[in-house]
Amino acid sequence: MKLNPYLTQKREYPLFIYARKAEELKAQGVDVINLTIGDPLDDTYPAVREATIKALQGKTNSAYPASKGSKELLEAVSDWARRNHDLNLDPTKQIISCNGSKEAIFHAAMLFDWSDGGEIFIPSLSYPVYENSAALHSIKYKYLPLTEENNFLPDLDAISDEDWQVCKMFWINSPHNPTTAIADLEYLQKLVDLAEKHYFMICADECYNDIHYGPVPPSILDTKPSKNWILFRSLSKRSHMTGYRCGAIMSLNEEIIAALIRMRAPMGQGSPTFIQAGAIQAWKDDQHPKDFTVGYRKKKKMLQNALEEKGFKVFGGGASFYLWFSHSEIKESTKILDLFIEQGIVITPGTAFGPDGEGYVRMVFCVTEEVCRKTAERIGKLNI
Amino acid sequence: MKLNPYLTQKREYPLFIYARKAEELKAQGVDVINLTIGDPLDDTYPAVREATIKALQGKTNSAYPASKGSKELLEAVSDWARRNHDLNLDPTKQIISCNGSKEAIFHAAMLFDWSDGGEIFIPSLSYPVYENSAALHSIKYKYLPLTEENNFLPDLDAISDEDWQVCKMFWINSPHNPTTAIADLEYLQKLVDLAEKHYFMICADECYNDIHYGPVPPSILDTKPSKNWILFRSLSKRSHMTGYRCGAIMSLNEEIIAALIRMRAPMGQGSPTFIQAGAIQAWKDDQHPKDFTVGYRKKKKMLQNALEEKGFKVFGGGASFYLWFSHSEIKESTKILDLFIEQGIVITPGTAFGPDGEGYVRMVFCVTEEVCRKTAERIGKLNI
Repeated sequence: MKLNPYLTQKREYPLFIYARKAEELKAQGVDVINLTIGDPLDDTYPAVREATIKALQGKTNSAYPASKGSKELLEAVSDWARRNHDLNLDPTKQIISCNGSKEAIFHAAMLFDWSDGGEIFIPSLSYPVYENSAALHSIKYKYLPLTEENNFLPDLDAISDEDWQVCKMFWINSPHNPTTAIADLEYLQKLVDLAEKHYFMICADECYNDIHYGPVPPSILDTKPSKNWILFRSLSKRSHMTGYRCGAIMSLNEEIIAALIRMRAPMGQGSPTFIQAGAIQAWKDDQHPKDFTVGYRKKKKMLQNALEEKGFKVFGGGASFYLWFSHSEIKESTKILDLFIEQGIVITPGTAFGPDGEGYVRMVFCVTEEVCRKTAERIGKLNI
Repeated sequence: MKLNPYLTQKREYPLFIYARKAEELKAQGVDVINLTIGDPLDDTYPAVREATIKALQGKTNSAYPASKGSKELLEAVSDWARRNHDLNLDPTKQIISCNGSKEAIFHAAMLFDWSDGGEIFIPSLSYPVYENSAALHSIKYKYLPLTEENNFLPDLDAISDEDWQVCKMFWINSPHNPTTAIADLEYLQKLVDLAEKHYFMICADECYNDIHYGPVPPSILDTKPSKNWILFRSLSKRSHMTGYRCGAIMSLNEEIIAALIRMRAPMGQGSPTFIQAGAIQAWKDDQHPKDFTVGYRKKKKMLQNALEEKGFKVFGGGASFYLWFSHSEIKESTKILDLFIEQGIVITPGTAFGPDGEGYVRMVFCVTEEVCRKTAERIGKLNI
């Protein structure tokens, strides 16, 4: 019983080293501020919590949830797409519920036959689950370099026809974690055209589209109708529902949705019906993410000003609750982390997100205003 | 993008054919009784629902649940094992939470390296997820024949040393779905001895151990300490929590639990903390499954008597809420289904559970007493 080789690799992430340092400081009585996890501290959209409680109060027995999602939930997602993207999605043939977008993203690769090769293309800085999934499924993947020069988006023109030949799945995450880069509609349309030409599937992870500070970030839903994308949307950020686990998968490719329904039935990924009751409220309302953004904008400004006063260069910033930054005089992520940990602040080294992260760091600001204020003060004291 | 070959196989299960027939009858106004799904209709253990609601009421914001489970939950499972099986399990090193045992069972195979071959042994009648998982992961599996002669348990003596050489994982499900067969402690110990000798991992699915009508069914936890098993326990049946999705994985093999923690972190399988709050109550109490069983015993007797009066042979019956039966004069499962559907009753053909199901059928009795009474009456009218 040799273990999956991915599970036996020895890895010591800088992330863990600094998490340990933070623990040591805490033990010494330091008031440590942890700004590493994109988990909103502000309240869940109240209608969600109320509907969840009401559903639990109204039904004394239990029942297996349908793994594809209830009719009412799927219709709420369809209505959301119509209101926000002027697109009609058939709730039974083009949408399926998931138990949060993380598991849906993890399982996506299983849809395809990898026995005759094929690769997954992943941005060289990204949400680790794309790589974790490929590696645990023993599927080859290729990192597409993200750099300041290409505005932290894969350079589609730099990919050769030979490379496209091996591409079966392409992860695009816009607004992007960790860099906050946003792909414009032209970029997304170009990617769709390439997918149709070279016959690969775009997997679009759009977790952060509802938390934005400028124009609404374009969605794959806004491109010309195509069967070459699968969209993963989350309520975790939109409605502050990280602890509920309920999202949605959409595609105009009905064969793909049918295959997902079939594939996911034995996986046990149905969200409990009382959670679906909450999620329905979240999909039905478009105002609450706008309201959330008011607070985030204030927090962002406070921290970004403090960072820029200290000479940091902050990138992007059009969406999400991350600050991605570097310093022209400090070339290593860990050196930046050292400065912050001296002030009792834990942030994430860019290297935790992939091979092109050296020199960058990510800070979250989905914490309370009070914590942001304290953080800004401490940034002022950084020994630079 | 060729789909996973398992997803493109054309299959028309008898199950679906009869589900359609049931829909047609319903449309004609017939009061159809569906006895195909093992999903208890009786109330969830009330303390679970109360604790879940209280947790939701007590916290207005959300947070990602730790995928391995909260300390309090893992300790409640450890206490349960100590009380019920006189075994000390380290809550941090020998137990991990899961999002219901279905997903945990589905994902188990990913723990191992299958690149140099190796097979999963699966009973020839079983919960379909073992086979679904192997097939979707493109892992070879072998069916071990279950027959009346071997009391619906794999004949361990019939497996050759050559066969044991290729075995990496062995699914044992006792009490068994669908046949209700129970492996005695001697059988389980023999299996553990074989696993140590031939170096394979026993995956023990013990979903039905808490619903029993005779002695407590032996558990893999009762065998001599070994690192060659992983145990999957569910609250779905024990506490009528099918709709909550929260179970536990246990093993004395700390390397396996550490690998599971690592593997499952990117899978997004954490149960929401408010559900964990409910699950803690379920693990803490051993009386409520006993109370549930009082009702099940009555329902079972009512239906079993009705079946036997009509000449059906009912097997096993020591645990679970299934009746597994055949008729000496009716050789095909579908012929039995035809008789039942005439009376507006839908049951599951044995063939839905694997290659050795012909001639058998499964009926659930986790429905209301009223429905059982009505079913018994209709069984009396079967045209045999």
